[in-house]
Amino acid sequence: MTANVTHSASDTDRATDIADIEAYMERLGLAAREAATAMRRIDTAAKDAALNAMALHLEASRAEVLDANARDLEAGRRHGLDAALLDRLALDDARLDAMIEGLGQVAALPDPVGEVDGLRSRPSGIQVGQMRVPLGVIGIIYESRPNVTLEAASLCLKSGNACILRGGSEARESNAALAECIARGLEEAGLPRAAVQVVATTDREAVGRLIGMPEYVDVIIPRGGKSLIERISREASVPVIKHLDGVCHVYIDATADADKALAIAVNAKTQRYGTCNTMETLLVDAAVADALLPRLAAAYAEHGVELRGCERTCRTLSQALPASEADWAAEYLAPVLAIRVVDGVESALAHIERYSSRHTDAIVTEHYGLARRFMAEVDSSSVIVNASTRFADGFEYGLGAEIGISTDRLHVRGPVGLEGLTTRKYVVFGDGQIRG
Amino acid sequence: MTANVTHSASDTDRATDIADIEAYMERLGLAAREAATAMRRIDTAAKDAALNAMALHLEASRAEVLDANARDLEAGRRHGLDAALLDRLALDDARLDAMIEGLGQVAALPDPVGEVDGLRSRPSGIQVGQMRVPLGVIGIIYESRPNVTLEAASLCLKSGNACILRGGSEARESNAALAECIARGLEEAGLPRAAVQVVATTDREAVGRLIGMPEYVDVIIPRGGKSLIERISREASVPVIKHLDGVCHVYIDATADADKALAIAVNAKTQRYGTCNTMETLLVDAAVADALLPRLAAAYAEHGVELRGCERTCRTLSQALPASEADWAAEYLAPVLAIRVVDGVESALAHIERYSSRHTDAIVTEHYGLARRFMAEVDSSSVIVNASTRFADGFEYGLGAEIGISTDRLHVRGPVGLEGLTTRKYVVFGDGQIRG
Repeated sequence: MTANVTHSASDTDRATDIADIEAYMERLGLAAREAATAMRRIDTAAKDAALNAMALHLEASRAEVLDANARDLEAGRRHGLDAALLDRLALDDARLDAMIEGLGQVAALPDPVGEVDGLRSRPSGIQVGQMRVPLGVIGIIYESRPNVTLEAASLCLKSGNACILRGGSEARESNAALAECIARGLEEAGLPRAAVQVVATTDREAVGRLIGMPEYVDVIIPRGGKSLIERISREASVPVIKHLDGVCHVYIDATADADKALAIAVNAKTQRYGTCNTMETLLVDAAVADALLPRLAAAYAEHGVELRGCERTCRTLSQALPASEADWAAEYLAPVLAIRVVDGVESALAHIERYSSRHTDAIVTEHYGLARRFMAEVDSSSVIVNASTRFADGFEYGLGAEIGISTDRLHVRGPVGLEGLTTRKYVVFGDGQIRG
Repeated sequence: MTANVTHSASDTDRATDIADIEAYMERLGLAAREAATAMRRIDTAAKDAALNAMALHLEASRAEVLDANARDLEAGRRHGLDAALLDRLALDDARLDAMIEGLGQVAALPDPVGEVDGLRSRPSGIQVGQMRVPLGVIGIIYESRPNVTLEAASLCLKSGNACILRGGSEARESNAALAECIARGLEEAGLPRAAVQVVATTDREAVGRLIGMPEYVDVIIPRGGKSLIERISREASVPVIKHLDGVCHVYIDATADADKALAIAVNAKTQRYGTCNTMETLLVDAAVADALLPRLAAAYAEHGVELRGCERTCRTLSQALPASEADWAAEYLAPVLAIRVVDGVESALAHIERYSSRHTDAIVTEHYGLARRFMAEVDSSSVIVNASTRFADGFEYGLGAEIGISTDRLHVRGPVGLEGLTTRKYVVFGDGQIRG
């Protein structure tokens, strides 16, 4: 990878052009806006051809990509990055396989653009419907995982958007190598080069510009830690689709099937600890607490999960530590679980209303009316009856892909797939109608 | 209306409580948030009962409302409000009839809340769908028209939201009288009083607080002049659904039916001048310009429409004034029309891409492929073939009601009805499924 190649996916060809960050980002923005306009003329076949060509170039460039990644890893070690960050940064053949397969999967997904919903005739004689169209220009800001570069590029492209990708500085060389594969794929399929631009500077000012150009960027999707996302949301003048906390609950009702309850409560906590849809607080109806808590505690003990309970929980489970107020709001992302005994659904709903981050909450019950009530009243992006919170995921929901999980209320809530990267305009078909 | 009654629809009962604007708005916000939670338990029948009760109270309070309005008008005249503003502020029996009828119409609309789309089974055994739910708390900021108070209240209520309404200071007494009818309707139907709160102070700081409380307010919808909306959008930390310009185009293609083209071009300009979906620029294909322009000019002359044309237009129409660059971007809202002769669809699309405010643009054509292309490539909230731009309206589209027309891209584009005031959460139904 020469410096020249590094920048080929962006709209500038000389490293010196990057020195003036504001002018550089302005050029990227303008090129993206033009590409977004051009993308409205690009059909599904061309988009899929570009995705498949990118996969072929990635396959052919394995050595270069791994080489670039090795340089990033070396620099990372030199700068003292921790093991978890180095692991997220590292590519190997298996991860490249997954990235190549991912491109093919996105190519195989149905194209959401152009779909018309609800076309109907009106008394005036016009026909009205809503057509799904790209959002326009999407800015994605992410951290060290280089596979996000391809995921984000492929999802934005398939949904007809132009995108500007700004990855973490730790993955600079890897992203430049991937950008080269993307650029070649776009070129071969006859798509505008600026449909996918990878920001070729690691200067933090570039992020500030990206989130402050509403004339060029229609939406920002930050992916990464909470502090990054909070900062971007606070400072952006461009709308942001964001994911904040996942403080998820499972409530076990008195009528719950004990075996289902046990399986769900254990799976929701232990299947993976670091994910946003992992249960962080378990609520147990007082009527079944004495019967269930010891069985639950035994299962959690096998997984080495630390329990922090309310007073009533601690009376039943001597091994539980007393939970503090902070525990009810904690997103542990670790083998730690808060447990609270509650007096029926009313008190469970009140707890969830107060402490849930409105990501994903589940009830385990065999009571029809309670299931309906929980479904209607819990105000979270996913509300689940009798299944693990871990299902709250774009792939499990059948979206085919996921660019993130939105904890916002407007535009899109929950897992965001291709549809979340589009919007709908009204289309009207007439035969000369005028308004009387 | 005593001062006491004025405040009864908000969450405070003593005028002195309003002196500290920050604390007052905080109380309104908290009460709205609690009401939004309570609204999730309110069924359709109760919401409709409240709307119908409001209509009855408005009918019974005609004298009080007109009396309050007379005081506003008197104060307005004293403060030198212009005639147009006084007209918007004025209520009479016919306008009250329309408001009462409007409440009944909203009550009769289908309830969007609880509708589940796309429920499907997944290989894991879970069933997944998306349920329509209220946005939460909606803040509406508007100007002098008192009927907006009832429109906004009824649409927010029917869609299950709590709302905080902040009308113009000119309509203070009228809005207080209407707030009283709203409060009584809510009370009789057993709905939370804070489901609709009318801000009882005209202090401008109240607006600043309302748009800066994301913890209490989920979305702001400003209704009014462009400068108000731009200021709110710039300063709000709460998401805004907004309407900016309506610089709408009609493009008459060479294959257009001349009679349809004439009817549409005249209707789109002259049916009403002051509306956002009125055509402001007419584009005519050069191939038919000589034949059509004189007929168009004659028709516009009958309506007293001033024409401002490009060079080619002015060569054909001696009565046209030369258009300046500013004319192509102008939202006249007046009997003035910019006309440009273009070389086919490519040049029409380029003009629209550059100058359209992306509100509503139309083509008149009998060419199938061009109609498809215009539909796909014009990036506006409404794209119309062979009908007047004046159809871009919630009632004409069959939404049953309209709280505004969004020129944003995210969440909702075009006319915003009840659906635009809702969002969708994922609902998952299982029988004990866990993730493997």
